[in-house]
Amino acid sequence: VSASRLPGEFQIIARYFAPLAAKAPGALGLTDDAALLDVPAGCRLVVTTDAMVSGVHFLPDDPADAVAAKLLRVNLSDLAAMGAEPVGYTLVVAFSPEIDEPWLAAFARGLAADQERFGIFLLGGDTVATPGPLTLSLTAMGTVPEGRELRRRGARPGDLVCVSGTIGDGALGLKVLRRQLPNLPAHLREFLAGRYRYPTPRLGLGARLRGVASAAMDISDGLIADLAHICETSEVAAVIEAEKVPLSEAARAALALDASLFVPAVLAGGDDYELLFTVSAGAADGLEKLAAAAGLPLTVIGRIEAGRGVTAVDRNGTALDTGAGGYRHF
Amino acid sequence: VSASRLPGEFQIIARYFAPLAAKAPGALGLTDDAALLDVPAGCRLVVTTDAMVSGVHFLPDDPADAVAAKLLRVNLSDLAAMGAEPVGYTLVVAFSPEIDEPWLAAFARGLAADQERFGIFLLGGDTVATPGPLTLSLTAMGTVPEGRELRRRGARPGDLVCVSGTIGDGALGLKVLRRQLPNLPAHLREFLAGRYRYPTPRLGLGARLRGVASAAMDISDGLIADLAHICETSEVAAVIEAEKVPLSEAARAALALDASLFVPAVLAGGDDYELLFTVSAGAADGLEKLAAAAGLPLTVIGRIEAGRGVTAVDRNGTALDTGAGGYRHF
Repeated sequence: VSASRLPGEFQIIARYFAPLAAKAPGALGLTDDAALLDVPAGCRLVVTTDAMVSGVHFLPDDPADAVAAKLLRVNLSDLAAMGAEPVGYTLVVAFSPEIDEPWLAAFARGLAADQERFGIFLLGGDTVATPGPLTLSLTAMGTVPEGRELRRRGARPGDLVCVSGTIGDGALGLKVLRRQLPNLPAHLREFLAGRYRYPTPRLGLGARLRGVASAAMDISDGLIADLAHICETSEVAAVIEAEKVPLSEAARAALALDASLFVPAVLAGGDDYELLFTVSAGAADGLEKLAAAAGLPLTVIGRIEAGRGVTAVDRNGTALDTGAGGYRHF
Repeated sequence: VSASRLPGEFQIIARYFAPLAAKAPGALGLTDDAALLDVPAGCRLVVTTDAMVSGVHFLPDDPADAVAAKLLRVNLSDLAAMGAEPVGYTLVVAFSPEIDEPWLAAFARGLAADQERFGIFLLGGDTVATPGPLTLSLTAMGTVPEGRELRRRGARPGDLVCVSGTIGDGALGLKVLRRQLPNLPAHLREFLAGRYRYPTPRLGLGARLRGVASAAMDISDGLIADLAHICETSEVAAVIEAEKVPLSEAARAALALDASLFVPAVLAGGDDYELLFTVSAGAADGLEKLAAAAGLPLTVIGRIEAGRGVTAVDRNGTALDTGAGGYRHF
């Protein structure tokens, strides 16, 4: 396999990846067999990995820096969901034949910008060629004080179900990019597309939820599906009050044009990368202060009950038909 | 993208991957957003990642358990080259449409066998679908006592250049699998193919080289190319005496049939995953004891000199033409 539009592997590493590792002493300039990472005493390493395939997880004509940002941020969002502070990442790029050097340069610029934003560094990786679509995989590493990590299990009957930010923007943003919301004003379309392309990992909130949240995860597969994961591992049930789910101005405008989008985009849509967490009823009073400290809205959208499964109810208490809910990867 | 021959993602994880993570408490049953790993006080984490694409790095009809073994072992070999002890790994599988459940089951069995062999566990991962070829990426993690890690830099003029095991078997094994060595006796072909498919990461040796080797790496791109990496990062030159490079019985038989294979297979061939390291001349006496302890031959094949570059000489001291040397990934 020859990816003739690109320089050789060693040039690629020297030109585009080594600069991303330059400030991480443990990356050893990407010239060794492996990278070194110091985990502070009293801390645990937190590791997560996510892959993206062109045409499956992003659109082949998505801007390279947006692809870089999404790849990095979905992984950082997993660290946030565990209450971890990010440290660095390793990256695998399987280059498809159509990838050229300007694409690679823009991809590296996207990584560099986010490294700055989140205080992390490239630690190592591998570059290979593939005759198939561009395939990216990233392993993010962070640290969390021992025993303080957030977990999916731990939600108890009586706990309140909370979310950060607004829900549904990710799925609606994907619709915008697929030109399925043409009647929405341009600035709202842009906002939603940005939410899909540039999710914000809630790292500050995750760290502040240590010792506060009884269970936590990030919303990637969809609100209902992800809450079902918490319920399953916590061995509880949950009821969501649909009208309490926080919506952005853009999402409200999209739903005003087509109310049928509510279930698929808001309840079952994914890619929001907000945090979904539970707190004891007694901790509810602290949420406002927490929201102010984290700099983003936190909303109670339901409660944990005994039993199994997730139900969404309307303002009359009638259960909504939410279908299977959530994105299945295949 | 639908990989209809496989069960759904969550079933795949529950059926094939969760059992591989069952004994690793930090994997959290693969039901959380990330995995947790404790790094003992006084130790550093060592991280490496390698990817393999079907049709590029392995043959599409290679046995699934051999693919699993190779993927895991090339990464463990990187840990060995740093003197690290392996702990666990994360795995990304991008399933191509032709992958079916028997393939996946055999792949998981291969991982399970090697987990047992090397005392490691699956910590986390991601499974996605791709319309392209099966693409695998693995990030291996290990630990090394702080400051005792082996590095590529550190070779000094006067040091001896050493290798473990025998060299050239990997490249000759690939030729066997491509049916390019039909005249070699069957048992020798089998040996060489096995060396290609099931490389042995030299973990015991790597750990014993801490404080002994002045520089080390594993041979994956080819003896000359990899020694050039050591020379470049160490800012030295190296001279190899070609006749001293240790050969297996099978490699000797292959070279007896076709002597022209020596440079491409032995000096420039890759995939041996033996350790290439340098020791001070004073440490040479200890090599025999070290070889006995590690249970594999160690051979001095040359020396480090001032300057730059790698030269291979024949028994008359005449420089061999080794070409560019080494596998370029694209």
